[in-house]
Amino acid sequence: MNQTTADVVGIGNAIVDVIAHTDEAFLEKEALVKGTTALIDAERAELLYRMMGPAIEASGGSTANTMAGIASLGGKGAFIGKVHSDLLGEVFRHDLTAQGVRFDTPAATSGPATARCLILVTADGQRTMNTYLGACAELGPDDIDPDLVGAAQITYLEGYLFDPPLAQQAFGKAAAIAHATGRKVALSLSDPFCVARHRAAFRDLVAGHVDILFANEVEICSLYETADFVSAAAAVRGHVAVAALTRSAAGSLILADGAEYPIAAKPVARVVDTTGAGDLYAAGFLYGLTQGLPLPVCGETGSLCAAEIISHLGGRPERSLAQLVAEARNR
Amino acid sequence: MNQTTADVVGIGNAIVDVIAHTDEAFLEKEALVKGTTALIDAERAELLYRMMGPAIEASGGSTANTMAGIASLGGKGAFIGKVHSDLLGEVFRHDLTAQGVRFDTPAATSGPATARCLILVTADGQRTMNTYLGACAELGPDDIDPDLVGAAQITYLEGYLFDPPLAQQAFGKAAAIAHATGRKVALSLSDPFCVARHRAAFRDLVAGHVDILFANEVEICSLYETADFVSAAAAVRGHVAVAALTRSAAGSLILADGAEYPIAAKPVARVVDTTGAGDLYAAGFLYGLTQGLPLPVCGETGSLCAAEIISHLGGRPERSLAQLVAEARNR
Repeated sequence: MNQTTADVVGIGNAIVDVIAHTDEAFLEKEALVKGTTALIDAERAELLYRMMGPAIEASGGSTANTMAGIASLGGKGAFIGKVHSDLLGEVFRHDLTAQGVRFDTPAATSGPATARCLILVTADGQRTMNTYLGACAELGPDDIDPDLVGAAQITYLEGYLFDPPLAQQAFGKAAAIAHATGRKVALSLSDPFCVARHRAAFRDLVAGHVDILFANEVEICSLYETADFVSAAAAVRGHVAVAALTRSAAGSLILADGAEYPIAAKPVARVVDTTGAGDLYAAGFLYGLTQGLPLPVCGETGSLCAAEIISHLGGRPERSLAQLVAEARNR
Repeated sequence: MNQTTADVVGIGNAIVDVIAHTDEAFLEKEALVKGTTALIDAERAELLYRMMGPAIEASGGSTANTMAGIASLGGKGAFIGKVHSDLLGEVFRHDLTAQGVRFDTPAATSGPATARCLILVTADGQRTMNTYLGACAELGPDDIDPDLVGAAQITYLEGYLFDPPLAQQAFGKAAAIAHATGRKVALSLSDPFCVARHRAAFRDLVAGHVDILFANEVEICSLYETADFVSAAAAVRGHVAVAALTRSAAGSLILADGAEYPIAAKPVARVVDTTGAGDLYAAGFLYGLTQGLPLPVCGETGSLCAAEIISHLGGRPERSLAQLVAEARNR
């Protein structure tokens, strides 16, 4: 690797978001579960788009959002993911590299179009996502650059990678390289339905292959098949070195080495769109870790970044997170 | 015309906006004049995009923004403009029709791609626009549906239509039909550079063919080649039945029949992006006119709509303007 080493290399689905406001009646009519992600095919994507209100397009993808956040904080990040060589693919690449994230994975020149996620935002700021994976199915083990992964402090993987079969293999290869080179592996559980689809595999991963785990309340409860957050938190203890469990407005709970740190959420004037809240929490947290900051400070940085992202439409920061952190410190 | 008659038919360039935050240094380096629109070719668009920061894509176009605003207010609108049959063209059509605006103009299947406008937003909320007209050059007189224009109370034209030569002919045809059928013609001067490019033609139009004129301070001063707003306002008197002259935070001035009505701007907590401010002022004003409201109420409705649009990125309303007006009335 002849470029500066990355602090974090993120591997995930490369997706452009199509974001529209909607009402509860539309979610009900279309049998969509608020706050979750559904996988849809090209035909359903076309149909749903036709029924949706006016939208904006913005680069997204869970891990890609996190990497954009890390770069905005001043960290060095690289992303591995697959777009098609089409307009949305160019948009995705532009937005990530313009943010300062290294992104070398070549675009697919055959197969399906660049992935898109139709996001419906209700008046309460909650988002309901419908993902057409498209070109993401083309990401495979060959796209994992061993030098890039081996040189990064942390390899960050999204649970969504378990949906496309080849990407699952890429995930495994990256995790193996990271550990073989003495690096850390971080995982986000992504979505409760995603956890349900891959529960056994995720439990195995968490028990044996993950150092840092991100999950929200619903996801960690789904992983351990309990309705009780305290039980779920107890279950994950001992499996990972660090677990950061997010709870929306109730903040987050960090578990590590027998200690636990409750972190408050950062209040915002108005929650416009929660898209990217978890992704940007992870960005702040991982950036803090790579800077050697204490865990509670990592969590607070995560809360600060999440607060920025939920105050506007879309999952990418609209202002410099480094500046936001500097302002918070001077307060 | 076998669908419900439109209150307003708008004719304009069909453009998708690509919006990024930037700083003053970038504008200076690229010799861009803040708050104005530059016309660029495909090559320059490509180059500028590569240099821009992370962006979002949102349907735009001055008149199209106005029509989306009228529809959001509950008015019946139709749009005539030319996209290419490509992804951005589909996005443009979706966003306008999903808002409830009738848009029947067929997409071009040959020639250049759908138009895009690279918009750079500075920290003060000002926007600087760079338009690649693309498929807009394909709009011509044949795209003007005489029945549609003849049936609408008001035909609204943007000054930008004078840039593509064929569109200029479409403009002339539409204005002639509107007047022949006893309808009103409204014109927005669009941009000071656009006024400078077509000053003689615009003066002729304003003197002889326009009933309702929209212009901001800089545009009306450019039209009459004066640095003094009061002189410019005096010059336009008598030429048009109604002139609505906008002055950013200083509100607007409505001139009609020897009377004048100063209208306050509606204060906003934070100006995020002024893209569409004039377009949405026109939406509120034109909607008011078609509803037979008194001129000062038309102006206040315009101010209210402009305030919504400048509080977020992009030139299309993010919330129901009809609801916004209802709330303002109940206060």
